[in-house]
Amino acid sequence: MRTALVIGTGLVGTSAALALRARGVQVYLRDADPERARTAAALGAGTDSAPDGPVDLAIVAVPPAHIASVVAEVQRGGLARGCIDVGSVKGGPRRELHELGHPDPAGYLGTHPMSGREQQGPLAASADLFEGRPWVVTPTAATDTEVLNLALELIALCGAVPVVMDADAHDRAVALVSHTPQLVSSLVAARLESADEASVRLCGQGIRDVTRIAASDPAMWVDILSANPGPVADILADVAGDLEEAVRALRALESADEEKRSDGVAGVGDLLRRGNAGRTRVPGKHGQAPAAYETVAVLIGDRPGELARIFADAGAAGVNIEDVRIEHATGQQAGHVQLMVEPGAVRALKQELRERGWSFRQQ
Amino acid sequence: MRTALVIGTGLVGTSAALALRARGVQVYLRDADPERARTAAALGAGTDSAPDGPVDLAIVAVPPAHIASVVAEVQRGGLARGCIDVGSVKGGPRRELHELGHPDPAGYLGTHPMSGREQQGPLAASADLFEGRPWVVTPTAATDTEVLNLALELIALCGAVPVVMDADAHDRAVALVSHTPQLVSSLVAARLESADEASVRLCGQGIRDVTRIAASDPAMWVDILSANPGPVADILADVAGDLEEAVRALRALESADEEKRSDGVAGVGDLLRRGNAGRTRVPGKHGQAPAAYETVAVLIGDRPGELARIFADAGAAGVNIEDVRIEHATGQQAGHVQLMVEPGAVRALKQELRERGWSFRQQ
Repeated sequence: MRTALVIGTGLVGTSAALALRARGVQVYLRDADPERARTAAALGAGTDSAPDGPVDLAIVAVPPAHIASVVAEVQRGGLARGCIDVGSVKGGPRRELHELGHPDPAGYLGTHPMSGREQQGPLAASADLFEGRPWVVTPTAATDTEVLNLALELIALCGAVPVVMDADAHDRAVALVSHTPQLVSSLVAARLESADEASVRLCGQGIRDVTRIAASDPAMWVDILSANPGPVADILADVAGDLEEAVRALRALESADEEKRSDGVAGVGDLLRRGNAGRTRVPGKHGQAPAAYETVAVLIGDRPGELARIFADAGAAGVNIEDVRIEHATGQQAGHVQLMVEPGAVRALKQELRERGWSFRQQ
Repeated sequence: MRTALVIGTGLVGTSAALALRARGVQVYLRDADPERARTAAALGAGTDSAPDGPVDLAIVAVPPAHIASVVAEVQRGGLARGCIDVGSVKGGPRRELHELGHPDPAGYLGTHPMSGREQQGPLAASADLFEGRPWVVTPTAATDTEVLNLALELIALCGAVPVVMDADAHDRAVALVSHTPQLVSSLVAARLESADEASVRLCGQGIRDVTRIAASDPAMWVDILSANPGPVADILADVAGDLEEAVRALRALESADEEKRSDGVAGVGDLLRRGNAGRTRVPGKHGQAPAAYETVAVLIGDRPGELARIFADAGAAGVNIEDVRIEHATGQQAGHVQLMVEPGAVRALKQELRERGWSFRQQ
């Protein structure tokens, strides 16, 4: 690939452009808002002038509702040898293209890099946004091999990992692992809107984690959900069924009848155990199961350099910290840091830290 | 306080005993399972022999269903000047005590330290488990001031922060900020139980956070929820109402009718905005709003010492890292570390790190 046209210079488009520029590809930038294309160009993502002739690959990075019309325009105008989009849903745009009398089904490939951020727009972009992340490609029997290979080259240049999926299977998968958790997180957070101060003071790490993504941008999520409403509604309806069952089981627990209460215990227990089972499916770091690490909890103060010291001391033990969680104390300038490490490394880490004066909770 | 009797030597009871021992209080340990009391004694939490006469404070740390009968037994036996429990619900045990013909309402105080862990049992205990955490006390007009002061002394010795609440208000609060998030996290995780491999490969940090607590122990949570079913069912029913509204809005987004679609957009947007508003209520570190920090995202490798180096370099800039999140790349030995710092510290931190060869995403 020597030339590319990026249409839509938001977070994803500009990040892909930066990655291509870093590998010497000539990149042309276009945006419905010329100011944004100029910003992306100023960041070194390419030029906002128009290409002289057809480029090797057009990358359509516009909101889901506009993908089909932009792809059709690129193909009708002969702007590129191959055309991909990078939108977060894949079935809808394909059907819309069909309705628009798809100019060249062989020359188009729907793709989706699985890497988001809280921030949007070209200023949040980075050449390494896709590093190590899955990048879904949804070829059909009609897809030209040359176009597929151009997309795979782009994905390799971005340091991402290609995953081949059917377009509709992709949409159901992201409904399950991304869109549903987003809405449910918002639902839990919404319950806090009118909570009294004394109640929110009791918030701990559990609700902090469950509601973290409830801080996401509503406008962006309305766009995403509008493009994938069916699969998300189907899963939410299943969640609603389980939720109804949970309410029924809890009401049974309030009963004076012992048989009803033991039904309630069984119902709640079953739900919690299914949650355990589902949670083990969530891949941890590098795709491993999260249970693969053990936690060492160390007491720390709140002065600059405390964390540096603890990580330096862990490094001295030759131990790699796989993950970190800081558990903060409320109203105090101190907390715990939980270091997740390979089980085989726990003993060496604790010995080294103990010798260097750290104290921790017993595991 | 010079003497205490801890009944129930699990995580909370043994941790309180360890904290009291560290301050020179004579602690007696008792458990329905004598082996557990022996384990706690071996950890330095006190003696598992019986006290000669009444102790200053009895701390009842048994599962919620047994609190009332154990408190009644302590009071009838004259085992202590004052008696508190540390269970995770407060209204039910008080009502049960009343039904048991509460021997001494003045001598009892219901309390709840807000500090849990994934691990249970005496071996998971630690003298600093309560450090900086809220510890709810639920005095009534009948509560003896001496008993209240004994409890406040215990809380101070444990380094916790006392919070006075009405017993039923406490139960509604923990239903909102702890029990509901637990069940909802389990509900989302349960959807993954039968998901195909390709789908779970697409899991990102969002679903990882939302489902983290779904890994909690079902038996412990059945105990907790069984003692607080009403308030949790009430909140879950409200969540179910919002969920139904979300499904309705998503189905409207599937409609061919433009007016229905714009109703759907409004419905989904409203829910996401209410989630935004609720999320701002969740206190961050030291009770501050989470929005008070800015994020600096740094690219790191996966070798021992990488984190040490970055924290040392941050320390050299005199910057305190307020929170840390490691975002892992799938299938690759590299990732990003997100450093949360005071907004005023961002410039100094980035300059120092850049000079020392780190690269990061633009904010």
